[in-house]
Amino acid sequence: MQTYLAQAHAGIAPLHRPSMDTALARHGHLAKAPGSLGRLEALGVQLAGITANPRPKFKAPAVLVLVADHGVTAQGVSSYPGTATARMVLNVLSGGAAINAIAKEAGARIVVADFGLATFFAHRRELQNWRVAAGAHDFSQEHAMSRGEAELAVERGIQVAEREIQRGADLLALGEIGIGNTTSAAAITCALLGVPAALITGRGTGIDDQRLARKVSIIDAALARWTPDGKDPLDVLAKVGGFEIGGLVGAFLGASLRRVPAIVDGFVATAAALLACGIAPALRESLIFAHRSPERGHAAMLTALGAEPLLDFKIRLGEGSGAALAIPIVRTTARVLDEMSTFDEAGVTQFAR
Amino acid sequence: MQTYLAQAHAGIAPLHRPSMDTALARHGHLAKAPGSLGRLEALGVQLAGITANPRPKFKAPAVLVLVADHGVTAQGVSSYPGTATARMVLNVLSGGAAINAIAKEAGARIVVADFGLATFFAHRRELQNWRVAAGAHDFSQEHAMSRGEAELAVERGIQVAEREIQRGADLLALGEIGIGNTTSAAAITCALLGVPAALITGRGTGIDDQRLARKVSIIDAALARWTPDGKDPLDVLAKVGGFEIGGLVGAFLGASLRRVPAIVDGFVATAAALLACGIAPALRESLIFAHRSPERGHAAMLTALGAEPLLDFKIRLGEGSGAALAIPIVRTTARVLDEMSTFDEAGVTQFAR
Repeated sequence: MQTYLAQAHAGIAPLHRPSMDTALARHGHLAKAPGSLGRLEALGVQLAGITANPRPKFKAPAVLVLVADHGVTAQGVSSYPGTATARMVLNVLSGGAAINAIAKEAGARIVVADFGLATFFAHRRELQNWRVAAGAHDFSQEHAMSRGEAELAVERGIQVAEREIQRGADLLALGEIGIGNTTSAAAITCALLGVPAALITGRGTGIDDQRLARKVSIIDAALARWTPDGKDPLDVLAKVGGFEIGGLVGAFLGASLRRVPAIVDGFVATAAALLACGIAPALRESLIFAHRSPERGHAAMLTALGAEPLLDFKIRLGEGSGAALAIPIVRTTARVLDEMSTFDEAGVTQFAR
Repeated sequence: MQTYLAQAHAGIAPLHRPSMDTALARHGHLAKAPGSLGRLEALGVQLAGITANPRPKFKAPAVLVLVADHGVTAQGVSSYPGTATARMVLNVLSGGAAINAIAKEAGARIVVADFGLATFFAHRRELQNWRVAAGAHDFSQEHAMSRGEAELAVERGIQVAEREIQRGADLLALGEIGIGNTTSAAAITCALLGVPAALITGRGTGIDDQRLARKVSIIDAALARWTPDGKDPLDVLAKVGGFEIGGLVGAFLGASLRRVPAIVDGFVATAAALLACGIAPALRESLIFAHRSPERGHAAMLTALGAEPLLDFKIRLGEGSGAALAIPIVRTTARVLDEMSTFDEAGVTQFAR
């Protein structure tokens, strides 16, 4: 167990109750009917607890897009060839992807971090290099990675989050790009929850019935062959995971260590959240779940985590798109808590019945 | 029938199909898996149809908060006295209300328009004067207003929307303030849908069981006594409505006449939308429903309108708060449609399988 991961085990703190109590009391004094802001009130209290600040402000949100390739694409589990990962990454870097438009509207900068693309883009300086290896192995044939690589991916994920926080990011939206990674995420979820692949595996980018059946059987076969230990998240990550998924595990841990709220994107990011909460259960309360993915299996993940996402738009795009779409909701929630007048400040003591 | 209202009858156009077709085709060419943006794709197509622009842009959203008083508060239907309306309005004008924080985050300016406060705030220049009368009458004792006043409220609602659009607003979030207006909105809904008050009437700002029973019986009694004609929206508005509700009816019509998307807030605004769609059924397609209110009866309204709101945060605050919270979603939707690269532009023709 290396330094960073050990630190995560030890360092993830529960939510800061005094800040939550202060935020909750403030919501009771704000000039509105009690509870009338609905979920935004509970979210405000959670944000206070994560940040240990009863009136948190978010001035510099960042979208972290962790990217890597998956050898399992050789088995025809996706509508797209594995080479599409790099093309999608280049489209983000050139500003033409959905996440660019969404992040721009949210006032967030985008950080794209290579955790294991099959091809090394040495000439793209804006693509951060956190590479662990040149793509995960085809987990239908061998373990996706060694246990040491799994640990390294998680540790580098902690580091990428910490670095952006040191650079000023105070709210992180976390997503991924990686053709084949819904196959990996489904396998991880089956291993952790102990359920068969048919219950969790979906169509990803839109595969037909034949490919879906193949995807299910590949996952079931790999789980039977490698028997990942659902009580050992790193074992699961090593046997059927991916480098960007390991990176996301670390990024969630790193955000929580620095008391920065992390917004979890859809199906793949939620699989990483499941792994991360397996490593450090206290992490769960500092995660904000952005949206319900229509991908089969996401509902089961959310139930396992006791999570109720903010949005339900049937988005299944990846890139952190759903997480970034939730940034304005989170910022608005904090702004309401911080900027609204209390009854006293508004001079409307007669306001109450 | 005066000029503006007659114009609304005649002038509400259906969505612009050619722009919708172009937007739909563009979504098929953007560099993403087909349909992967979920509801944002259909919303983008709707925005194209409303604006008659296949790539609409929203640079100047405005929140219109229409305010008025309700004589029915004398019957104890609210947790707050009628005088709280003016105090809430003053809190918005001084920047301390929830809507101020929400609108600021959304980059929207706020317009507060007096359609019939009990007290005339001659000294508050930032409070636009569209007053029809000094509050609606207590509809448990007499009609809320005359038919002529109902028409005038709707016409002034058309005008307030048109004026803000002439001033540059290209996206309108529409809400209200008016103690007692959930009583009026419930009565309107019962009259239009032909259902008893117990099915529609909720707790508003948070009344107890006793007040709720009173609220229900007052609505049922008024409907029995005044027999508003559910086929005649102006008759319903006159007998059990309110001036800000009439204004919202007009504002929805005015936005649609100018091909500007209107975002409908919660329970009270949706009652106004029901009335407006009764006047001009073609209006329905140009409305965007922001959020599900937890107020009893909102679900029935939404079902009657065939509407599926964007958000579900259990907000029951009014002030246009839910509508303003949806502004970033609408802007992001338009930005994605406009700014994403097509597969060709991204040079990723090999992207597809």
